[in-house]
Amino acid sequence: MQGKRVYMDNAASTRMDEKVLEAMEPYLFEKYSVATSEFGHSMGIEAKEGLEEARKSIAKRLGAAPGEMIFTSGSAESSNLAIKGVMEANKGHLIVSDIEDFAVLHTARTLEKAGYEVSYLPVDEEGFVDPDELVDTIRDDTVLVSIQHANQEIGTIQDISALAGICDEAEVLFHTDATHTFTRVPLDVEKIPVDLVTLSAHTIHGPKGIGALYVREGTPLKKQMEGGFQEFDMRGGLENIPGAVGFSKAVELVAEDENRRLKELRDMIIDRVQEEIPDTTLNGSREQRLPQNANITFHYVEGESITLHLDMRGIAVSTGSACFSRSLEASHVIMGIGGDHERAHGSVRFSLGRFNTEEEVNYVVDNIKEVVKRLREISPLGKE
Amino acid sequence: MQGKRVYMDNAASTRMDEKVLEAMEPYLFEKYSVATSEFGHSMGIEAKEGLEEARKSIAKRLGAAPGEMIFTSGSAESSNLAIKGVMEANKGHLIVSDIEDFAVLHTARTLEKAGYEVSYLPVDEEGFVDPDELVDTIRDDTVLVSIQHANQEIGTIQDISALAGICDEAEVLFHTDATHTFTRVPLDVEKIPVDLVTLSAHTIHGPKGIGALYVREGTPLKKQMEGGFQEFDMRGGLENIPGAVGFSKAVELVAEDENRRLKELRDMIIDRVQEEIPDTTLNGSREQRLPQNANITFHYVEGESITLHLDMRGIAVSTGSACFSRSLEASHVIMGIGGDHERAHGSVRFSLGRFNTEEEVNYVVDNIKEVVKRLREISPLGKE
Repeated sequence: MQGKRVYMDNAASTRMDEKVLEAMEPYLFEKYSVATSEFGHSMGIEAKEGLEEARKSIAKRLGAAPGEMIFTSGSAESSNLAIKGVMEANKGHLIVSDIEDFAVLHTARTLEKAGYEVSYLPVDEEGFVDPDELVDTIRDDTVLVSIQHANQEIGTIQDISALAGICDEAEVLFHTDATHTFTRVPLDVEKIPVDLVTLSAHTIHGPKGIGALYVREGTPLKKQMEGGFQEFDMRGGLENIPGAVGFSKAVELVAEDENRRLKELRDMIIDRVQEEIPDTTLNGSREQRLPQNANITFHYVEGESITLHLDMRGIAVSTGSACFSRSLEASHVIMGIGGDHERAHGSVRFSLGRFNTEEEVNYVVDNIKEVVKRLREISPLGKE
Repeated sequence: MQGKRVYMDNAASTRMDEKVLEAMEPYLFEKYSVATSEFGHSMGIEAKEGLEEARKSIAKRLGAAPGEMIFTSGSAESSNLAIKGVMEANKGHLIVSDIEDFAVLHTARTLEKAGYEVSYLPVDEEGFVDPDELVDTIRDDTVLVSIQHANQEIGTIQDISALAGICDEAEVLFHTDATHTFTRVPLDVEKIPVDLVTLSAHTIHGPKGIGALYVREGTPLKKQMEGGFQEFDMRGGLENIPGAVGFSKAVELVAEDENRRLKELRDMIIDRVQEEIPDTTLNGSREQRLPQNANITFHYVEGESITLHLDMRGIAVSTGSACFSRSLEASHVIMGIGGDHERAHGSVRFSLGRFNTEEEVNYVVDNIKEVVKRLREISPLGKE
């Protein structure tokens, strides 16, 4: 592995698959018409067909109808549209969990500043929302509950079936951010009464700049981006047909075999670290966990020091929240599961993708073992 | 040209240049880190550098500083952010022209419904806003004026220098939608006091799904898309680095020679049609006109019939507004310049791009000549 670079941070899933680009190329160089020209000429119809095939195929993977799938520029836009769109169409009370990704959490805070009432649900030490607590938090004027399918940092998969069922019974709309679970963890909107689902392409080796929002038929939603009448008049702006086609191909390429393989790699990391490195804590649930995620706190060392030393060895891993790496503030997720600053700052997240190998996993664990040992020897954060 | 397809509709400029994809590929397959990992490891720094180089290069073309350039998902998002962002940060009165693209026009109408006061400036028979009328429309509480650099349908280029100067003097913010002019028609924000400029990549053979908003330093703007702290905390969501790099390459590829060539092709269309086909009207200005646009009404025939017959000959052109082709309603632009329904419905727009040739132009004009002649022979819209 000497000289090679190993991506085991959140970029691991964002490397585009060559097959995705292959699928996009006809729409970049030959069938590049504008979809809204469909009434004008046959090239417009051909481009529109590419868009609608992509929509149908992505919708199908979720158990949805094509008309319930709105293309957006990515998961941030999808979550903004879902939450602002529903709240502005209905007014009332909003519930989100404490450990949502920023697209949800910051949207909730912005709405709160604008005068909406928002409740933030705490999570337990593994990151789970307590269904009973959700029942207690729902009020007569609650309009929407937004709880992620799985957490972006610690990988905990919520019991979406139970949570959506509670909302359904209370006649409250339910949104889930499935950015990290779509195609990796089953979700069927025919079986689970979820009303809005945020989807992303770049987390499954698809293109950046494209995502989608599933909106159950009949859900009241206020348009957030003005422009033409694209996307069932729910999202203005020229359709990104190559992006949609690439997204669809990316969805098609995720097979159950791959998810099993990712789980095996994930378990290799967790098992080897727990057996071979003392004083570690697995963050999140061992069982209800994203196939592609491991998150471990190495006590008495700084995560930033680990990432720095691994970087010098050509290895990319993350610490704290990806977004927060900019400010070095403690991860709101680790704090949310009851961790302290030491646990947050010592946390290292491993993210896996299609192109990671068993050899890479062993190389990364071997190196982290060495690095943690050395850092602990010189650490001022001594064990008592 | 038999058997070949000729794109001379708005798709002509959206065919991606192979060199753009070449520039993007390293960021799809090798340097695919997340830019916000810049503090974490060197791969993040490398990816971030790609993003910042792209930002710098695009900003430079506009005479802007890199820190004044916010990447978005495209021109619709840019115009939404500019107008909602400024109006929500300031409250007050908004002025737009009657013939803006829908991203601006529908944003204005949405704000109007939300209680903002909006004035719509009429245009003259060539599509120009009258600077004196702008002076008269500006009120004490006017916050923002949004007037496009050039029109999307009839190609009329506004006297942006005069309009921006008026706003500057009145201490009113000025936004211009430069979707169709960026790199094609000079605009230098060091010389012209414009505060916000909407830019798009797909109109210059760049990628779809990426655009930018120039925001002059110090302009108050409310963030519209929540997420992380990307884009100077003005636009959340994972950075689309391959898109930004492709956008930058697309900008670099537009040379003055090409703009001259497009003007020549445009003039060939206009001259040949006006000389060889009776009863036509050029829509828009002859002199102050986009290099890549011709828009002509063929009287006594339906534009829809022309596009249909040209389509059977493998030629794509547009009629009415691109977006309105969906509903077959009359173009708001042709109506805005004082046209009637007959003039709007008989209008055909020719859009040119890098890959159009002189041979194609002659082929298209030859065909439209035949088609118009035949349609007029059978037309119920007889000349009196």
